[in-house]
Amino acid sequence: MSKHTTLSLDAMGGDSAPDMVVEGVALAFEKLPQVDFLLFGDERQLAPLLDKYKQLKPVCQIRHTEDVVSNDEKAGVALRSGRHSSMRLAINAVNDGEAAGIVSAGNTGALMAMAKFVLKTLPGISRPAIAKNFPTLNGECMILDLGANVICDADNLVQFAVMGEVFARTNFGVEKPSIGILNVGREELKGHESVQQAFNILQNIDLPIHFHGFVEGDDIAKGTVDVVVTDGFTGNIALKSAEGTAKMIGAFLKEALLSTTRSKLGAILAKPALDALKKRFDPRLHNGAMFLGLNGICVKSHGGTDGLGFANALEVAVELVSGDLIGVIKEEMTDLDYGMDKEAVTQD
Amino acid sequence: MSKHTTLSLDAMGGDSAPDMVVEGVALAFEKLPQVDFLLFGDERQLAPLLDKYKQLKPVCQIRHTEDVVSNDEKAGVALRSGRHSSMRLAINAVNDGEAAGIVSAGNTGALMAMAKFVLKTLPGISRPAIAKNFPTLNGECMILDLGANVICDADNLVQFAVMGEVFARTNFGVEKPSIGILNVGREELKGHESVQQAFNILQNIDLPIHFHGFVEGDDIAKGTVDVVVTDGFTGNIALKSAEGTAKMIGAFLKEALLSTTRSKLGAILAKPALDALKKRFDPRLHNGAMFLGLNGICVKSHGGTDGLGFANALEVAVELVSGDLIGVIKEEMTDLDYGMDKEAVTQD
Repeated sequence: MSKHTTLSLDAMGGDSAPDMVVEGVALAFEKLPQVDFLLFGDERQLAPLLDKYKQLKPVCQIRHTEDVVSNDEKAGVALRSGRHSSMRLAINAVNDGEAAGIVSAGNTGALMAMAKFVLKTLPGISRPAIAKNFPTLNGECMILDLGANVICDADNLVQFAVMGEVFARTNFGVEKPSIGILNVGREELKGHESVQQAFNILQNIDLPIHFHGFVEGDDIAKGTVDVVVTDGFTGNIALKSAEGTAKMIGAFLKEALLSTTRSKLGAILAKPALDALKKRFDPRLHNGAMFLGLNGICVKSHGGTDGLGFANALEVAVELVSGDLIGVIKEEMTDLDYGMDKEAVTQD
Repeated sequence: MSKHTTLSLDAMGGDSAPDMVVEGVALAFEKLPQVDFLLFGDERQLAPLLDKYKQLKPVCQIRHTEDVVSNDEKAGVALRSGRHSSMRLAINAVNDGEAAGIVSAGNTGALMAMAKFVLKTLPGISRPAIAKNFPTLNGECMILDLGANVICDADNLVQFAVMGEVFARTNFGVEKPSIGILNVGREELKGHESVQQAFNILQNIDLPIHFHGFVEGDDIAKGTVDVVVTDGFTGNIALKSAEGTAKMIGAFLKEALLSTTRSKLGAILAKPALDALKKRFDPRLHNGAMFLGLNGICVKSHGGTDGLGFANALEVAVELVSGDLIGVIKEEMTDLDYGMDKEAVTQD
């Protein structure tokens, strides 16, 4: 990254905010020396935290506000009554051109509602999607949607495919990412109407994308494709079911290694290798979900993360800014014409 | 199990059939001395295989047929033209009262179509579901539907809940199994219409069942509930995504343990503990999916399994027979009345 970038941060969002936000900035600073940060939140809390990191002084600015969107606030309520919240002001900064992207570890529903309201969706995109990377046998893939849209029609899925393709190019550096639609079988006739229609559209689409076809649940971890497209209901459940399984196996592995004196000794010897494996699955190093389809970069950090995780979300945002994600999606959507309704539809 | 039971087997179904079927019978025989087996298939292949296991002579009968349903045959075609297939004749044996249940490792779609056609659905059940056990942090849970019904309405989900509850009681021996509906959040307002309506019905249902509410994808492996209810699209993808993740972690663990001389030494010491862990996740020991909602016990073995896996599927069938699964589901469905349409609907 060569250009100078400014990120706006919801410094009060997240279970351990604002401490972990400032910690995250301090950790990211090493890797992102060309980035400035606007920290929206309570100055009385933020100023003493920033004082601990003298090196951040030239790159951080506090924008004071006392309003915070709480975790249990409904999206609609937050949208109406949170106009002066740290989350909303941080989003506004992107719309005003002060910042190139916003990162928040706060309430997901409120962040999506506010970001949609302030930044608007891109031309040709009816619904933004939540996208995230997932480790696979041969690297990483990205899955979308992870829960922004519980029901999706074929047009939504096709738009997710196009946006996901651009994201994978920008984020993974894959020249021609492959795209798969998640389904209950690989054969053309499997699944419901939306996936079948999306399959037909993507097979005949007038864009130079690499459409692989249908993929199944186990293809996610296999790394069969770079981009896995699905509705928000299925995507959310597939991802959480995979995460739950990974945690369970981790717990069982620990239990097995502590079960006998002999296995304990083995575990001590294998510790460096096992630690490296653990790091590979460290959710903090995969932190940072992207809201794709908005006219602005918006990255959602996990609410329960720490400074290391938040720093990773900051890096994701900077990568998307430098790759000009929004510009490329806009271009692709202009080229995309298969007769679908391009009017922006807002349904909640 | 004290009573005498007869199972009918599609001896030609499965990638390694008929060898693995006979091997499975031989392995199950030790644990199931009171069970007789009707083996439907090619006598010229089956007779020499059975000759290898003299102890099976008194409990096995070959029923000759040359017709076999292939793996890539469409369900509708198999239904029309497979009337003399090993699969169909084995199902007929249950309908004729010759056998208490049928086990097949053949074509899933064909097996469901034939079993539905021959055995019919139980009163009050509009759609049968595929159900399977899954290991959890505190034991096992069962998930349904795993792919028989791509789209499910609230009534389908409620019926799955009732059937799953009976299955869990019979199969796990849990006195009052808890039931959860898979969703994208635990709050009442999350998800789409079908899960919300099913939630309302189950909360007010006039049956002594323990309805936990909504659960998320990670609750499957956590073991939050005994029965996880979902539509066949989501269930299939959630299960396969979990299985894919488990395989990926297994591969990474192996790679990590072989990465250095020190870790290799550790792996040798930890081998007995790691082998025990591997066994816990051995898919063969979890083999045997149940078609719930039919007027007869029908168990589907994984097509790629071996004798050990098939033996496990046989045990599942026998458990369901001894627990009188069908009788108990019938009883519960008679007690169940919340104004839903009880007419059997067949949609393919």
